[in-house]
Amino acid sequence: MKQDHTTRQKHRTSGIASSPGPLPYPPGSDFLYKPRFITLLTDFGLSDAYAGVMKGVIASINPFARVVDLCHEVAPQDVHAAAFLMAASFAYFPRGTIHVAVVDPTVGTERRALCVEAGDYVFVGPDNGVLSIACKRAGQRKIVAIEEKKYFLSDRSRTFHGRDVFAPVAAHISAGVSIDAFGPRVRSMKRILHSLPRIPTSGRIEGEIVHVDSFGNLITNIDEETIRKVFPRINKRGLVIHCGGRSIHGLSDAYGEAKRGQALALIGSYGLMELAVRDGSASVTLGTKRGGAVTVERLRHRIAHIQRRR
Amino acid sequence: MKQDHTTRQKHRTSGIASSPGPLPYPPGSDFLYKPRFITLLTDFGLSDAYAGVMKGVIASINPFARVVDLCHEVAPQDVHAAAFLMAASFAYFPRGTIHVAVVDPTVGTERRALCVEAGDYVFVGPDNGVLSIACKRAGQRKIVAIEEKKYFLSDRSRTFHGRDVFAPVAAHISAGVSIDAFGPRVRSMKRILHSLPRIPTSGRIEGEIVHVDSFGNLITNIDEETIRKVFPRINKRGLVIHCGGRSIHGLSDAYGEAKRGQALALIGSYGLMELAVRDGSASVTLGTKRGGAVTVERLRHRIAHIQRRR
Amino acid sequence: MKQDHTTRQKHRTSGIASSPGPLPYPPGSDFLYKPRFITLLTDFGLSDAYAGVMKGVIASINPFARVVDLCHEVAPQDVHAAAFLMAASFAYFPRGTIHVAVVDPTVGTERRALCVEAGDYVFVGPDNGVLSIACKRAGQRKIVAIEEKKYFLSDRSRTFHGRDVFAPVAAHISAGVSIDAFGPRVRSMKRILHSLPRIPTSGRIEGEIVHVDSFGNLITNIDEETIRKVFPRINKRGLVIHCGGRSIHGLSDAYGEAKRGQALALIGSYGLMELAVRDGSASVTLGTKRGGAVTVERLRHRIAHIQRRR
Repeated sequence: MKQDHTTRQKHRTSGIASSPGPLPYPPGSDFLYKPRFITLLTDFGLSDAYAGVMKGVIASINPFARVVDLCHEVAPQDVHAAAFLMAASFAYFPRGTIHVAVVDPTVGTERRALCVEAGDYVFVGPDNGVLSIACKRAGQRKIVAIEEKKYFLSDRSRTFHGRDVFAPVAAHISAGVSIDAFGPRVRSMKRILHSLPRIPTSGRIEGEIVHVDSFGNLITNIDEETIRKVFPRINKRGLVIHCGGRSIHGLSDAYGEAKRGQALALIGSYGLMELAVRDGSASVTLGTKRGGAVTVERLRHRIAHIQRRR
Repeated sequence: MKQDHTTRQKHRTSGIASSPGPLPYPPGSDFLYKPRFITLLTDFGLSDAYAGVMKGVIASINPFARVVDLCHEVAPQDVHAAAFLMAASFAYFPRGTIHVAVVDPTVGTERRALCVEAGDYVFVGPDNGVLSIACKRAGQRKIVAIEEKKYFLSDRSRTFHGRDVFAPVAAHISAGVSIDAFGPRVRSMKRILHSLPRIPTSGRIEGEIVHVDSFGNLITNIDEETIRKVFPRINKRGLVIHCGGRSIHGLSDAYGEAKRGQALALIGSYGLMELAVRDGSASVTLGTKRGGAVTVERLRHRIAHIQRRR
Repeated sequence: MKQDHTTRQKHRTSGIASSPGPLPYPPGSDFLYKPRFITLLTDFGLSDAYAGVMKGVIASINPFARVVDLCHEVAPQDVHAAAFLMAASFAYFPRGTIHVAVVDPTVGTERRALCVEAGDYVFVGPDNGVLSIACKRAGQRKIVAIEEKKYFLSDRSRTFHGRDVFAPVAAHISAGVSIDAFGPRVRSMKRILHSLPRIPTSGRIEGEIVHVDSFGNLITNIDEETIRKVFPRINKRGLVIHCGGRSIHGLSDAYGEAKRGQALALIGSYGLMELAVRDGSASVTLGTKRGGAVTVERLRHRIAHIQRRR
């Protein structure tokens, strides 16, 4: 069956694929009763048909796979942002979900393509760090370099591995192919360092902005547990957060607690401390972006809440 | 079964959810033969993974639910626009569809979360008016305040109820849970007043802009029936529409009837009178936005069609 | 069964559709074992619920259809861009996929609506050329003018045929209705001329930009085969490409081969020669858009790679 499939692909004309033939995998109860999910995380944007075409390729191989868009509007070639989003999102999907990331500035060069089993998930993408934070958190067990060309679209381009390599590989996994089929095991992958907050002296946390979301909220690498550990007996109203030359007094519980245009800090939906401006952009108001420094200290004297610049 | 599910959630670590265990609901013929649809209407945008994560949560609870994006690009915190879109869209979906709206500026404060049975649909969202126009039109029958925490993600954040409350509740409904399971019935919800056109003297309709779509078309609250009632014997070419200091002569049948840059009025796809500019933006050309006044009168003397400013 | 369906639609109130009744088609094994895909290509954008509503209409008729967004952010009314994307994408979907294009500046006028069988696919859309390039490539076999009103939403508007005509027709096809049911066969459709590259003298190809993608990449009408035919014995490093008053030396293999800000030419994922600027926009750097001239010649003396303007 698989042989037929491969042969068929070889006859496709260049440029535009001819239509797929019979399914490589017979539809059966497994497909119906255990739907497999595939998520897509790319920087393709939504103004072209690139993401749609990936779904066509998946549907041609396994029409029963359920494809979910995680995000297609990662800033072009921003591997860090994609790695953050993948790490923050993967665990909300059902066991067995195949997570595909295609933010791939070096496509067509010698960078490897990877398939990783980690925790209850499979991750697929280029070896540029985009999968690394998620795989570490999930509990990485096995890494395979994707090399077996019979699983690729036969007229593979050098510029669109999302369509030609990653989508078909994910579809074959969703149909039951073991990741060992795609190539040799490798021992490691390229990693993005996920900076951890420092505690230089007792009573002070030094962190940084690790992500800016589309509302302009600044997400830091300082998690709730670290704050509780460093300031065990201090009420969260008794903290002061410094960022971008300004000070924010206390940790809030909800965006709605601040007045319009006012900055606030809270533990956001990622479980991390975020800086936000109600009905505004903290990134603009604080003039800060990814990598910017953030510190948390005990409040010693009362500092007024910062206001939006006038 | 449900008990197991709840217990499992309690063991999840904070911040990143561990992967879900076995389905809380056994897959059966009901799931396969009567797919339930869930629509999502939010202001999350598409540059983050927020909408994708909601779909992961739904899939973890009921992988057979069919999720449809109604819109994720409502202007941030624009409850009115979301209420309009929901009211204009819900009835095009199959009976039993669960419509979820998450435009929620006061998330984390004391505002209630609601589940509403109305007509053939179920509506889920915050009690800030976003559901109110749709529920009234559909024929609201039962309102429940969502309070039963065992249906939430256990590490519920205070900032992302879309993921932690509304997505799981919608998924449980799609799997057959009655809305009474989520909390007590309540008697009313917060309403957005949906202004109706006035008819101050015979032969004159005074209305307003209730929505601006992404083409810049200005949608009014004046429907076809009102026009027919107030001007029973007048051909639609015999009307004049005033808006933004300009006059539009006659009601057209199609966008294509105007010349490039010319403003026109027609009964649009919402069944309401719209002002549009061919190959342009009526909002820009007429300098008008939501709340702007619009009047319809009988044409007494011929007024030239307005042209785009030069 | 179909009669009931039609009757039901006639009773719907104007403006907002009442909810659909029982399915017009009984769910059966055919639906489960051979899922039919429907793709949507529109210029509706994602800031309104227009695309979502089309999916609701499809789900109301055939909840088992699998809908895939090809693209909703075609530039408003850009029929050429939509025709290009459709032609470049359709063949990546499973046999039997129904491709719907709604870029329709003359909706509501006398332009026809079409259903086309071509190759293994069915195409649905207005008769303005948007389907023409794809249908020609796929191998057009049968064209039908959509006229049979019983398949439309009964309160059809004059401005939103995506919802009222094309979505229901596609859904009925996905449920097994033959395209002959929708109206009479017609002999031809409006065509968009797809310009071919010229070879005025041996050793020179004159082409043009046929598409600009959202990265600003300039896609030409010059395909790999033409280059190989005209320059049979010349290494691709021995070519020079002229566009926008600049010269690019050689054909690259991958975006990653150029330095930041540098322009390069390569055979892209469409199988066509593309001009790109690494980490930038070729459209901006070369000051060129659709229709711009591009020539390929043999390199006679060494020309420096162009650099981004400083």
